Amino acid sequence: MKHIHATLRVNAERLRANFDALAYIGATPEGGVHRPALSESHLAARTWFLDQARKAGLETSLDAAGNHSAILWCENPSAKTVLLGSHLDSVPQGGRFDGALGVMAAFEVLQTLKDADVSLPFHVEVIDFTDEEGEYIGLLGSRALTGQLAPQSFQHPRGNRQAFDIALTCAGLDTQTIVTAARNHNKLAAYLELHVEQGPRLYEANLNIGVVTSIVGICSYKLKFIGKANHAGTTPMNRRWDAALGASAFTLSARELVMSDFSEGVVNIGRMDVEPGVFNVVPRTVTIALEFRAGDIETLNLMESRLLHQASLDAEKFGLRLETEHIGKIAPFPMEPGIQDLIVKACQTFEFSHTRMTSGAGHDAQSLALVCPTGMIFVPSVDGVSHSPYEFTEWEDCVNGTNVLLQTVLGIAETF
Amino acid sequence: MKHIHATLRVNAERLRANFDALAYIGATPEGGVHRPALSESHLAARTWFLDQARKAGLETSLDAAGNHSAILWCENPSAKTVLLGSHLDSVPQGGRFDGALGVMAAFEVLQTLKDADVSLPFHVEVIDFTDEEGEYIGLLGSRALTGQLAPQSFQHPRGNRQAFDIALTCAGLDTQTIVTAARNHNKLAAYLELHVEQGPRLYEANLNIGVVTSIVGICSYKLKFIGKANHAGTTPMNRRWDAALGASAFTLSARELVMSDFSEGVVNIGRMDVEPGVFNVVPRTVTIALEFRAGDIETLNLMESRLLHQASLDAEKFGLRLETEHIGKIAPFPMEPGIQDLIVKACQTFEFSHTRMTSGAGHDAQSLALVCPTGMIFVPSVDGVSHSPYEFTEWEDCVNGTNVLLQTVLGIAETF
Repeated sequence: MKHIHATLRVNAERLRANFDALAYIGATPEGGVHRPALSESHLAARTWFLDQARKAGLETSLDAAGNHSAILWCENPSAKTVLLGSHLDSVPQGGRFDGALGVMAAFEVLQTLKDADVSLPFHVEVIDFTDEEGEYIGLLGSRALTGQLAPQSFQHPRGNRQAFDIALTCAGLDTQTIVTAARNHNKLAAYLELHVEQGPRLYEANLNIGVVTSIVGICSYKLKFIGKANHAGTTPMNRRWDAALGASAFTLSARELVMSDFSEGVVNIGRMDVEPGVFNVVPRTVTIALEFRAGDIETLNLMESRLLHQASLDAEKFGLRLETEHIGKIAPFPMEPGIQDLIVKACQTFEFSHTRMTSGAGHDAQSLALVCPTGMIFVPSVDGVSHSPYEFTEWEDCVNGTNVLLQTVLGIAETF
Repeated sequence: MKHIHATLRVNAERLRANFDALAYIGATPEGGVHRPALSESHLAARTWFLDQARKAGLETSLDAAGNHSAILWCENPSAKTVLLGSHLDSVPQGGRFDGALGVMAAFEVLQTLKDADVSLPFHVEVIDFTDEEGEYIGLLGSRALTGQLAPQSFQHPRGNRQAFDIALTCAGLDTQTIVTAARNHNKLAAYLELHVEQGPRLYEANLNIGVVTSIVGICSYKLKFIGKANHAGTTPMNRRWDAALGASAFTLSARELVMSDFSEGVVNIGRMDVEPGVFNVVPRTVTIALEFRAGDIETLNLMESRLLHQASLDAEKFGLRLETEHIGKIAPFPMEPGIQDLIVKACQTFEFSHTRMTSGAGHDAQSLALVCPTGMIFVPSVDGVSHSPYEFTEWEDCVNGTNVLLQTVLGIAETF
């Protein structure tokens, strides 16, 4: 059996045909797709997916969180399930690869396993999770499946509650029953997800595959630098408490700090709101949106204390007060080392160049990582473009990643 | 006559009584006044002023721009007029001194001259200009009187056009006739204005009087630093074109540049708008509101070229493009040297400490400076507080300034 497995390959033509057909649903003139979660085009894509699965002779299912699945049962009815998945929704005016490639690759792996009549010690389920991108509730489907949602989780969807309720109704869902999508963790053998990197590391290093070591943790703050509003004509320069100076100094020093002391981390100041915000008044306050990410919790915590200390130094330098508002912290999600090793082994089988790396973006895999062994496979994004109609991954990389996904599933089977 | 003049003093008690009575009109709980131009409280203050002038036996008049005047005629009907003025309107939730002190001081000077029966070679007119603060059209009254307004000047009032039209109607004015308030420049002998400094220079240097050399010119730009939006998690720090970095660097370097090379000038970055402006996206653009001021046009022009060059350097440093949008440039308004000398002489008469200085804020005097010899007298603002209910000037300083105003009028008479 081992020999047969090692030579098994996915059907690249079938994968391409399905990928292209899917990309027509919600296609935009720029060459991307517009499939926000639960929108008409997103629901059409999901219906199309189940139709294709049924045509391929696979069983399909739909859970209370709207997750759509195609299933290949093994001989043992009480066996565990290996989930392979991603999402068919997109950001508004997004690209064809983000999420969609992962579902189509998993679907192709399932068909390849079925065609080859491979005997496996677990069921394999391809799953398309609901609202990964957070049109309403980020990672809704994967969080529901792993039991991380409660009725109160739905009180503050992005956009407004009414739009969310209408969208759920159109999709045949409701907030009362979503939580019943939670599965028994003991029945989940593993979760694997293929995804485009959404960054330039693999592309620039000319590597085939990224083996994800963890999905980075994210910490965010609003920092308010507080000075004194004053007449911008009559107040001498050396008598100002100009909040913009502290905010600007920190914007520069935060970058310096992270680049010098946290080379694997990133920091972003994505917004600066100035009050009163007019030409002729010295800024009284500037509130900045600070976000930083790291691959492990110790590093994330250290970045947090170092950055907040730096902000207080920059405020002090210009005679300002600093108010910090903690917005949120998501701990990093480590991927299972054993699964990382299986992905590496699959790369070696194909002689694919590869590297272990963190994922700077969030994924459904982080929900699953809390309840079962989880792994992620990255393929290169040309120029690192993401969340854009112009995101692109070379077709050969898509096929390579799908073959690595297939070999990783077979690798898990060997460890059973 | 000269001897009598030199010993003439204003009536401090009467000045105080009028100043306090005026401060009740539109008074706010914090101790300031709320008298936006053409508001109910502002119109009430103007009516009160003409009533007081009539009670004092002075003639009053009202022109097509709503400027309110009290006049002391000299014996020669064809004589020129020395205007003394300021404004009774305030910024919303403003202070009791800004503008009001100038009108009340001028009114006191007029009464003192009348009581002393001083024979003058010119008429003296105390004038309260309409909308100095720019609730609708900044310096409306003084620009109308000096012929600087045309019908199209009213097309874009601050706030909206409808509110402006309603306010004009309530005040008995209309945009068709405002321009007829323009006076024959040859009939204007001089304009003098007493005002609170609105900055901390006199207060901090413990000086009695500021002799204004010019009202600073103001130049403003919108500067747009243009980078590239990117995923704030997946884009490595050294692969970002983060517009916030250029904008922040310039905010700091503009200040350094002005403090080191333009010690008399000021610069302000009063607003920073970040696009797309969210936690998790690297800023694509940051647009900043840049304003800078200088006392003479050569310096203003030099600041302009130096600051724009600095902005382009800061953009380049972070790989950004820079787009500059010129918003406006108001040339500095020099005050008449001869009148400055008369103010200095008046200070010497009283042994008041004084300094020549620029005005960082705009005033009605800048309209008049274009058509007749013009001078401004500043008195100290405690802590430099301005456009606030907490603006304050020691009463002794108010009286001193009023006596300097009186002596300057008498000084002009001597030069005739």
